[in-house]
Amino acid sequence: MKVKNSFKVHSRIWISTEDGNYLGEGRVFLLKGIQEYKSISKAAKSMEMSYKKAWNMVNTMNTISNSPLVTRTIGGAGGGGSKVTEAGMKAIELFNEIKTSNKIHLESKIDQIDFS
Amino acid sequence: MKVKNSFKVHSRIWISTEDGNYLGEGRVFLLKGIQEYKSISKAAKSMEMSYKKAWNMVNTMNTISNSPLVTRTIGGAGGGGSKVTEAGMKAIELFNEIKTSNKIHLESKIDQIDFS
Repeated sequence: MKVKNSFKVHSRIWISTEDGNYLGEGRVFLLKGIQEYKSISKAAKSMEMSYKKAWNMVNTMNTISNSPLVTRTIGGAGGGGSKVTEAGMKAIELFNEIKTSNKIHLESKIDQIDFS
Repeated sequence: MKVKNSFKVHSRIWISTEDGNYLGEGRVFLLKGIQEYKSISKAAKSMEMSYKKAWNMVNTMNTISNSPLVTRTIGGAGGGGSKVTEAGMKAIELFNEIKTSNKIHLESKIDQIDFS
């Protein structure tokens, strides 16, 4: 007798507006990196992403959002850097909230389904 | 005043077992093609996919599933072909059921969330 397989469901979510893609796994990961390193270039490096790509992602998110998710400080004693704003932290939190809710929903759904 | 963006949520789902990936958008699309064309090669061609890749996908699904999703008939008056089994049709249906349920869940979730 063949042992019944146990099926798992996976998902990737992303958020868009009429102006294009807004948030997804990669962008949220980048925001978390900027929060940690206080620098777009260091966050990009930690993800093996080019600075140009990271900068474009930040720019797109900032343009779409009603208030910027990341702000840049130029010069000063620390030589400048980047900061995830309150709006940015809220965006990370909301994305994770949707992701978790989605995971719970899918897991309960797959449990009700007999794929065999 | 900036007009508030309306946010949309998107998702891609896939099903796996301990033996690897089982069903996803691409595989379900392939199964539907085989159902339509009664042929793996014609279904693959319609998706601009190589026959080898399509055959591997079918083989993986058939191996993972308790009963095959696609069967092949060799020779005969029609020259042989492929057929999506009842188990295959059920798999397409269940995948679409999870996908629809997931879409409804995510849409109601995003409606409750204020990203602005």
